[in-house]
Amino acid sequence: MNSFGRLFRIQVFGESHGAGVGVIIDGCPAGLRIMESDLMLEINRRKSDGIGTTARTESDFPEIISGILNEKTTGSPIAIVFKNQDVQSEIYQTFREVPRPGHADFVVDRKFGGFNDIRGGGHFSGRLTLGLVAAGAIAKKLIEPTTINAKILEIGGETDFEEIIEKVRAEGDSIGGLIECRVQGVPVGLGEPFFDSVESLISHIVFSIPGIKAIEFGSGFQAAVMRGSAHNDLFIDKKGTTSTNNAGGINGGITNGNEIIFRVAVKPTSSISKSQRTLNFADEEPTDLSILGRHDACIALRAPVIVEAATAIVLADLFLLEQKFGRRME
Amino acid sequence: MNSFGRLFRIQVFGESHGAGVGVIIDGCPAGLRIMESDLMLEINRRKSDGIGTTARTESDFPEIISGILNEKTTGSPIAIVFKNQDVQSEIYQTFREVPRPGHADFVVDRKFGGFNDIRGGGHFSGRLTLGLVAAGAIAKKLIEPTTINAKILEIGGETDFEEIIEKVRAEGDSIGGLIECRVQGVPVGLGEPFFDSVESLISHIVFSIPGIKAIEFGSGFQAAVMRGSAHNDLFIDKKGTTSTNNAGGINGGITNGNEIIFRVAVKPTSSISKSQRTLNFADEEPTDLSILGRHDACIALRAPVIVEAATAIVLADLFLLEQKFGRRME
Amino acid sequence: MNSFGRLFRIQVFGESHGAGVGVIIDGCPAGLRIMESDLMLEINRRKSDGIGTTARTESDFPEIISGILNEKTTGSPIAIVFKNQDVQSEIYQTFREVPRPGHADFVVDRKFGGFNDIRGGGHFSGRLTLGLVAAGAIAKKLIEPTTINAKILEIGGETDFEEIIEKVRAEGDSIGGLIECRVQGVPVGLGEPFFDSVESLISHIVFSIPGIKAIEFGSGFQAAVMRGSAHNDLFIDKKGTTSTNNAGGINGGITNGNEIIFRVAVKPTSSISKSQRTLNFADEEPTDLSILGRHDACIALRAPVIVEAATAIVLADLFLLEQKFGRRME
Amino acid sequence: MNSFGRLFRIQVFGESHGAGVGVIIDGCPAGLRIMESDLMLEINRRKSDGIGTTARTESDFPEIISGILNEKTTGSPIAIVFKNQDVQSEIYQTFREVPRPGHADFVVDRKFGGFNDIRGGGHFSGRLTLGLVAAGAIAKKLIEPTTINAKILEIGGETDFEEIIEKVRAEGDSIGGLIECRVQGVPVGLGEPFFDSVESLISHIVFSIPGIKAIEFGSGFQAAVMRGSAHNDLFIDKKGTTSTNNAGGINGGITNGNEIIFRVAVKPTSSISKSQRTLNFADEEPTDLSILGRHDACIALRAPVIVEAATAIVLADLFLLEQKFGRRME
Repeated sequence: MNSFGRLFRIQVFGESHGAGVGVIIDGCPAGLRIMESDLMLEINRRKSDGIGTTARTESDFPEIISGILNEKTTGSPIAIVFKNQDVQSEIYQTFREVPRPGHADFVVDRKFGGFNDIRGGGHFSGRLTLGLVAAGAIAKKLIEPTTINAKILEIGGETDFEEIIEKVRAEGDSIGGLIECRVQGVPVGLGEPFFDSVESLISHIVFSIPGIKAIEFGSGFQAAVMRGSAHNDLFIDKKGTTSTNNAGGINGGITNGNEIIFRVAVKPTSSISKSQRTLNFADEEPTDLSILGRHDACIALRAPVIVEAATAIVLADLFLLEQKFGRRME
Repeated sequence: MNSFGRLFRIQVFGESHGAGVGVIIDGCPAGLRIMESDLMLEINRRKSDGIGTTARTESDFPEIISGILNEKTTGSPIAIVFKNQDVQSEIYQTFREVPRPGHADFVVDRKFGGFNDIRGGGHFSGRLTLGLVAAGAIAKKLIEPTTINAKILEIGGETDFEEIIEKVRAEGDSIGGLIECRVQGVPVGLGEPFFDSVESLISHIVFSIPGIKAIEFGSGFQAAVMRGSAHNDLFIDKKGTTSTNNAGGINGGITNGNEIIFRVAVKPTSSISKSQRTLNFADEEPTDLSILGRHDACIALRAPVIVEAATAIVLADLFLLEQKFGRRME
Repeated sequence: MNSFGRLFRIQVFGESHGAGVGVIIDGCPAGLRIMESDLMLEINRRKSDGIGTTARTESDFPEIISGILNEKTTGSPIAIVFKNQDVQSEIYQTFREVPRPGHADFVVDRKFGGFNDIRGGGHFSGRLTLGLVAAGAIAKKLIEPTTINAKILEIGGETDFEEIIEKVRAEGDSIGGLIECRVQGVPVGLGEPFFDSVESLISHIVFSIPGIKAIEFGSGFQAAVMRGSAHNDLFIDKKGTTSTNNAGGINGGITNGNEIIFRVAVKPTSSISKSQRTLNFADEEPTDLSILGRHDACIALRAPVIVEAATAIVLADLFLLEQKFGRRME
Repeated sequence: MNSFGRLFRIQVFGESHGAGVGVIIDGCPAGLRIMESDLMLEINRRKSDGIGTTARTESDFPEIISGILNEKTTGSPIAIVFKNQDVQSEIYQTFREVPRPGHADFVVDRKFGGFNDIRGGGHFSGRLTLGLVAAGAIAKKLIEPTTINAKILEIGGETDFEEIIEKVRAEGDSIGGLIECRVQGVPVGLGEPFFDSVESLISHIVFSIPGIKAIEFGSGFQAAVMRGSAHNDLFIDKKGTTSTNNAGGINGGITNGNEIIFRVAVKPTSSISKSQRTLNFADEEPTDLSILGRHDACIALRAPVIVEAATAIVLADLFLLEQKFGRRME
């Protein structure tokens, strides 16, 4: 359930306030050069340093248990653990009785019969994306020279968004955002028929990132109002380059060599200090809930590197499936 | 590659102008009542009878090879074949040299080294969705009394869309559309942590349907401009009913018991008779391409029953994973 | 449940006395030459023509539904159906009350709540191996010039076994046998660490063949009484050739370039006309059961081509995983 | 590659002389009681304390990273790490040039292009079975009251084997052994048709244990010389109890409620101090190799608890597939 991929296969584990979180990457070819700095570069991009993100001093150092020796992958599973530190767990027990609106508290408690670790969101915490980012850093090295770049297009509908973030934070509220991801240098022919279309795989893993509500490729929702004569991308050279890119770089689920383009919507953080009128499940009466503690005002700010990682993981798997390189590096 | 699902598992096969297309459904519990009329009801909804869809008299009769005896599933794989008839294959050979813009001709030819069956789109034809619809009909019976309803919201931006379809058809053009799908009677707790979130699985299979460009759950892209205080759905009873449904019935990837709601965009048909300026890959000069033959002016019209089937297949699998019923019916 | 393989993936389906049985082969590279005679050659080896095998005139013609065009694979799933004919189903209903000793009647009835198709053994019939043999024929073409040869070593402990078969048949009894399989021309390095060892994969699929009770690789059970100094195979050249082959061509789960060797035991056919004292589950009293109809006196006689097919399917998958050839033939 | 199971799914990782080895167990129902003593009991049975096993003071303490809270499973992946200590790695580099006969040195070096961690056997070390034993301890709790017992039948052909072990150890040699495993209290109906037969799954995982050369169920190789009238197990009561157990508790791949019985052969340890004449791959001339360091004279002595663990992992998965209990404990 917590694994993804066919040949480049990842398995995440961990709980936010337990001993640690981490990831296993199985199927990575032997001999790929991975330096600690490759991992730290991406992990730091996810960190809580900007405006709108939480002040928690996270323990984000990747402890490599196996699979890398002398800065080269060995061909055996790569295991990475991030130890947890600096946790404030006391406030969470109340969320079994007063589950936070917009959060997974209620459904997870019901699904796991109350045995789940609710502290810090447990297994459903955004901290689990650390493993995704580490796996993505390795996947990016594998698919070189293909490059992936995600960026924030808008926060709360604004393209210049520093002000709106300060405003919602001051109000104890949160705000959503819009991310765009582009992939350059993709060979023609990645992706598999039907259920392993590129869109299927990217959307699958992207919707595993907490807070994503929507995804569109190329023309996206705009396609619903377009005519075929405008939507069809015309070929302009024999490499398959097209004059427009409504396809978002994908036809019939398979890459066409043009830039892959997709956009995702990130919802506003559910945990807000602003008071909410909600239900106490242990009681008959509604209650007012104000969620204290450190919470991002805008989780979208951290999302680009996670979306890139997710995309890299899919592409690494598709490169291996298409046998674009062997089982060991030259 | 052409299979989907963990316990309720489907495998599609076939090419549009070969001997037939079909589906294997493996893992369906024994003793489920399936009548021919259950299949025909759904298959007929997908048929080409309405405005805007092709006039081809398709051979849509499901030949059941195995897995159903005396109108009950036997517990062994259900194999269903649809024989192909009424094909006009001559025109397709030209698409190797002049691949249709917006179509998979170019990428499939490259991926499979020209060995793919290009006639009628081959394995990449919309006809492959027949197997999906048949599997969906069985999945719907399995998840009763949960119900799924998809409908067209707009075609080309119009909610009353008969006129626009006639117009684009007369022009030899095509038009896109917007579909909404709702699921009622969903228990709390379906869906698995992280990679098997409900959104991950639904989007995965929905993007396997030819022509889908975008998907959004609940608030969808609107979430990107919303504040947490507005987006959070407040509980109003202890079953978990909420006053709003921005979550689209899903929190943390897991169903919360409210209606599942999502919307998808369908692009305009790529094959149009209107002339397009494109490339002849065997030649240096651009060429004008007018695609003759029978083609839907609006494939979105056929999409609702396919989207329902895809959703039913995901839910059948999740019901089995959650062990909501046994391996055999009572 | 009824599928096997990671990249070269097969899915079997069908019931002995239903409409047909068959197989889907997904993941076979495009452009592989497959002629009808390639399939018939193997299918005929499995046929019921020799001494000791049933006289049923089986309908063993492979109807290719998809995936092969002009004698070349297209890259899409290969679907093959064998229609059933010449069935005598009446006698089987009694086996619900008086399940045949040594047969799956009892457990299948319990597992599937009586909804299973019991006629001719249903999904648990040896006829299901037809799909395996067809898939094996294709796998053998893919792994050329690697060759696989299985042969009968002994029947009932006899190396010259015509007489013993006639004897047990005359007595209305049956007899077991011993098969050896050898693979030549295997590259070094096939097989994956730990759970996808070559022995794991071969034994997995071989124990899916009805009637197999044991398997041993290289020295096999003899290893239990040997010393390391005698068991270790010494290298005699730099290709990795060894002076002995106790390893059976496999070290650490990975091929070492020497011949792969394994042996399997096939049990005597369960269905015998000789009277057996057994239980009538609908009644209190024991009963005498004499199973009439056409049954092989020795199913081991048919097994070599099935064991070869199973081995070929594993090797085709491992060749693809090791990326020994691309996704399309040259 | 390093994962196994469909619903109760394990992923192993680690290298013998790296930072650690371990296992992830995904899919274990929430609320199962697991105490540290449950793990230690099994881990200690695998330890190197007896005659014939290595004197290495292994660091066998299971560090639980996630998935267990207050001695109950949380429903999220259970991650267990065993840190490595007390390693002597120097001698291993020579094994690239003079690969040990009977060992995986040669094939692993070729498969992974020399990037594999060869120290202590790396990922191909018997130390990797620690993760298997830990997962097995959890699986055993899950399938209670079903019980599994494996024991040594013979070492080097002797049922009283203390003397022979001392003898081969004194000679710097090693010796193989024979293990029998029995499972009591198995419900009727576990196992899936065809490729997920109980024999397929058990043999798959058992052949992942280093050193296993053969497996037989029930009558095993003896079946090859038996007649059907002797081999068929006759029913003696309506629970399905049979008077004999040639089936080994399995018919048609599905449990019949009788005891599951199988035997496996374990080869003699490859690493021996006794001199072996072998090849130096960096040189033209043969060389004499005497492997120093701590090595078991008889790895079969440690095997019973590992075979039990492997069997428990298969049964836990089959119980979940058969939905014998829910997703959370009562």
